[in-house]
Amino acid sequence: MTAAALLPILDLVGVAVFAISGALAAGRKSLDLLGVIVIAIVTSVGGGTLRDLLLDRTAFWIVNPKYLVTIIVAALATMAYVRFRRPPDKALQVADALGLAFFAISGAQIAETSGTGGLIAVVMGTITGVFGGVLRDVLCAEIPMILRKGNIYATAAIAGTSAYVVLQDAGVARLWSAAAGMLVIAGLRLAAIIWSLSLPVFTINERR
Amino acid sequence: MTAAALLPILDLVGVAVFAISGALAAGRKSLDLLGVIVIAIVTSVGGGTLRDLLLDRTAFWIVNPKYLVTIIVAALATMAYVRFRRPPDKALQVADALGLAFFAISGAQIAETSGTGGLIAVVMGTITGVFGGVLRDVLCAEIPMILRKGNIYATAAIAGTSAYVVLQDAGVARLWSAAAGMLVIAGLRLAAIIWSLSLPVFTINERR
Amino acid sequence: MTAAALLPILDLVGVAVFAISGALAAGRKSLDLLGVIVIAIVTSVGGGTLRDLLLDRTAFWIVNPKYLVTIIVAALATMAYVRFRRPPDKALQVADALGLAFFAISGAQIAETSGTGGLIAVVMGTITGVFGGVLRDVLCAEIPMILRKGNIYATAAIAGTSAYVVLQDAGVARLWSAAAGMLVIAGLRLAAIIWSLSLPVFTINERR
Repeated sequence: MTAAALLPILDLVGVAVFAISGALAAGRKSLDLLGVIVIAIVTSVGGGTLRDLLLDRTAFWIVNPKYLVTIIVAALATMAYVRFRRPPDKALQVADALGLAFFAISGAQIAETSGTGGLIAVVMGTITGVFGGVLRDVLCAEIPMILRKGNIYATAAIAGTSAYVVLQDAGVARLWSAAAGMLVIAGLRLAAIIWSLSLPVFTINERR
Repeated sequence: MTAAALLPILDLVGVAVFAISGALAAGRKSLDLLGVIVIAIVTSVGGGTLRDLLLDRTAFWIVNPKYLVTIIVAALATMAYVRFRRPPDKALQVADALGLAFFAISGAQIAETSGTGGLIAVVMGTITGVFGGVLRDVLCAEIPMILRKGNIYATAAIAGTSAYVVLQDAGVARLWSAAAGMLVIAGLRLAAIIWSLSLPVFTINERR
Repeated sequence: MTAAALLPILDLVGVAVFAISGALAAGRKSLDLLGVIVIAIVTSVGGGTLRDLLLDRTAFWIVNPKYLVTIIVAALATMAYVRFRRPPDKALQVADALGLAFFAISGAQIAETSGTGGLIAVVMGTITGVFGGVLRDVLCAEIPMILRKGNIYATAAIAGTSAYVVLQDAGVARLWSAAAGMLVIAGLRLAAIIWSLSLPVFTINERR
């Protein structure tokens, strides 16, 4: 009961956190007011939208406009806040890790509801968690952050959604599997931030 | 009657104008013949295609191939014309403002037909008007023009589609609401061009 | 019988070849392990996915996860191979030409199955063949290779799918039309590589 009541709130918090990260990225590129809102929207709904298109569902924010309202408010609040203070980078990274954890697991659950197998649920969960950030970087004409060196980001999403799928297959209840999956994602992501963990880089030696 | 007969012509004119703007952008990047046609197609149909994907409709240019034919002819004509004369930049900006006005309002109308509310109609109208240009800029590896400083472009689309939605809610007839919405878009866009209007820029001061 | 039995194998070979080309592109950008796999997946399934979205079909790799498994294995094998030897560039270009031929014609056939006309079948075949590579280049923040000078790539796909459509309209059997179309694509592509053929470039002379 309490957990179920918490979900819609977590959902909107995740959307708001991603909107803030989008607005800050836009600020670093000196976009105008509207550009900031557009980037905030794209960062926030991009992942879930691609998931919905691929699963042949109507995009979630069309069904319920509360998401767009939340994003616009969060982007405007970010712009107002940053006029007076530095963005609280540490707090935002923690919030972003929680948002990623929540989005990835809920994306995997939505894929399961559509009747897909485990591998596709992992892919859909990962897309839901990371694709908004990819679009944000592409629109700002940068190589997406998740592809560059030293970011355990999509990796965390893949590990957590895989844990969720494996636990469920092993008979663990849905709620506990989801909690464990989120813990894996947020834990890996925070560990990567604190100790600067990274995956090995693959470089082609053209001169060999 | 006359207005209804005018719509399909306006529709093709809008497609052709966007194709010309795409072909000219491709020319500035020295793409080859085919690259020019691809960019012209993407610029022209990109917005309506994303709208159709999001609303779960079949993309409009698949249903009726006259759009692709119009775009290819417009792109080839642009390449031929530019071999002999400079592109008529002023005339094109006016044509582009009209194209934007027409596409945004017709996009909002299509969203309404799918049974969405006012906020989503505004978003869909804006996407229809501006997303093709975003794709054009992303493919040319630039930050999208609509996000950069000094372009009242998406802003004009948002203002005009909002006017259209509000007027209809207030009981104004559909045709007149649409005309007023288009007037707002074209007017704002032309005013922005003539007097170099722009929205305030949001910059993060990293040193505060 | 033999030809029909060959198709699924060709299909997976095409997927693997595109995954290898994606992994090599990622290596040139020094992405990490996961970035390499993501780029390999996007390069490989991007074209077919856009085709399926546009035709309102479920994306082909969601229906059957063997594609993802093939891609991940191919990407990992590429990374292992390149640690010890230079990539066999010549062999890969030939394999890529065959992959393009197969993907474009099978994309056109899938469009036909959805009841579209000839022009749309050509567009869908071309999208299936080239769009994965476009996404690969956009994610690596480059102007897509197919749009730049000196690449008869999309052109080959357009020519071959057009040949396929025209031959079928002329009454040639489906299998032979498909074989001829693939021959046109692979032949044009290989000829362009061997003799460095290119289309004329369209440049705007701003000073006229």
